Amino acid sequence: MAQDWNARQYLKFEDERTRPPRDLLAQLPLDAPGLCVDLGCGPGNSTELLVARFPGAQVMGIDTSPDMLASARARLPSVRFEAGDASHFTLEQPADLIFANAVLQWVPDHARLFPRLLSLLAPGGFLAVQMPDNLDEPSHAAMRETAHNGPWADKLAGAAGARSPLPSAEHYYDLLIPHAARVDIWRTTYQHPLEGIPAIVEWVKGTGLRPFIDPLDGEERDAFLAAYAERLARHYRIRADGKVLLAFPRLFLVAQRA
Amino acid sequence: MAQDWNARQYLKFEDERTRPPRDLLAQLPLDAPGLCVDLGCGPGNSTELLVARFPGAQVMGIDTSPDMLASARARLPSVRFEAGDASHFTLEQPADLIFANAVLQWVPDHARLFPRLLSLLAPGGFLAVQMPDNLDEPSHAAMRETAHNGPWADKLAGAAGARSPLPSAEHYYDLLIPHAARVDIWRTTYQHPLEGIPAIVEWVKGTGLRPFIDPLDGEERDAFLAAYAERLARHYRIRADGKVLLAFPRLFLVAQRA
Repeated sequence: MAQDWNARQYLKFEDERTRPPRDLLAQLPLDAPGLCVDLGCGPGNSTELLVARFPGAQVMGIDTSPDMLASARARLPSVRFEAGDASHFTLEQPADLIFANAVLQWVPDHARLFPRLLSLLAPGGFLAVQMPDNLDEPSHAAMRETAHNGPWADKLAGAAGARSPLPSAEHYYDLLIPHAARVDIWRTTYQHPLEGIPAIVEWVKGTGLRPFIDPLDGEERDAFLAAYAERLARHYRIRADGKVLLAFPRLFLVAQRA
Repeated sequence: MAQDWNARQYLKFEDERTRPPRDLLAQLPLDAPGLCVDLGCGPGNSTELLVARFPGAQVMGIDTSPDMLASARARLPSVRFEAGDASHFTLEQPADLIFANAVLQWVPDHARLFPRLLSLLAPGGFLAVQMPDNLDEPSHAAMRETAHNGPWADKLAGAAGARSPLPSAEHYYDLLIPHAARVDIWRTTYQHPLEGIPAIVEWVKGTGLRPFIDPLDGEERDAFLAAYAERLARHYRIRADGKVLLAFPRLFLVAQRA
């Protein structure tokens, strides 16, 4: 899927979006690493966490999106950012950490990808991954339902295929443990209090909704968004303080190379 | 339910059991608090985390179990530990933190309990709670099924009632937000790699299995444990490295008093 990611839209919920990489980083028993790669670095918010946590390390960021890379370079001028994608990037030396926050859910063929990433690590190095696991949530089911039920159905026939459902935690354990000294997996569902249905739409506009609205323009896009918001309203009830809670499940994985 | 908790059994999986309170503590935006209460302190492993995180604070531990309190006092001689239970304990001054790790799932009537705990806080103080939410896991369904299907069925008729299923995250949000400046809720399922089915039995022996095996003795208890292990083996498959993964969901909640 060729698409550029809009850094400004993505950063609208920066506090909430930075919590998963913070939580992932907190589980890394890693001191004074050398090379640390932020794979799918986006606008550099996760890269900034790596720089702060490992002040002596050589941190580099990799992303496919020119817009995200420009935003990351402006944010962290002293860090090296390079264009590249998870399935093909190579490194001049083995890494002590490959940190992949909210990116690998877009990359196919994990059975090849994950062992490949482990092979780019030095012995004892860590692969740390966080992936949204929210395709079954009402927020995402409503995208597919809206796409199927409107004049845009043909144009959006392929949109739902941009991401596949994640395999189970057990599947990733079996995939990684033959190459790893230790595999730690957990899944967290965050409950984000947001200012009503429009805030849910704004949130997903920066990521999951892109394959659905990028093929549409003008009035058709507006109509899609209105129909989507209406479906959301059936599932997300207003809480005691007038907000809605967006439940957001994410899969986390830390593997140490043997 | 009158039962004493065995500190030695509970601490067999200390690393794994200390991770949830560590994760809870990591989400507290709290500097230099005064009084910090570790409610349901158990053998003091969570209390030790509070002492390390807040070196200047006045930390105290409260528990109902004499065995746990003795173990906690031996571990942390300089900390004040008192007998008390969540529904009735009182404090001489408002607390800046009430930390309740893996205890409130045993306490009834959360609709009264949670606002009561908030009322024991100073303005701006934090209530931090972690509760196992695993009654629907095969590990716990198998306890109930084993209890219903054996010569012990009458003796264990009340065992499953020792804990009630937890209400939803949304329910706790609505319960707390009228009294709170901010409520942060998340639910994490940890995947613990354990050394086969016997290790799962050992794990739950320290906690969830107690109401089922305490009323039995000798041969009957052994027979129950064997039948239970057999049921577990149907659900937990051996992974690529010969271990089993124990999925353990837990609900976390941090509320700041308004």
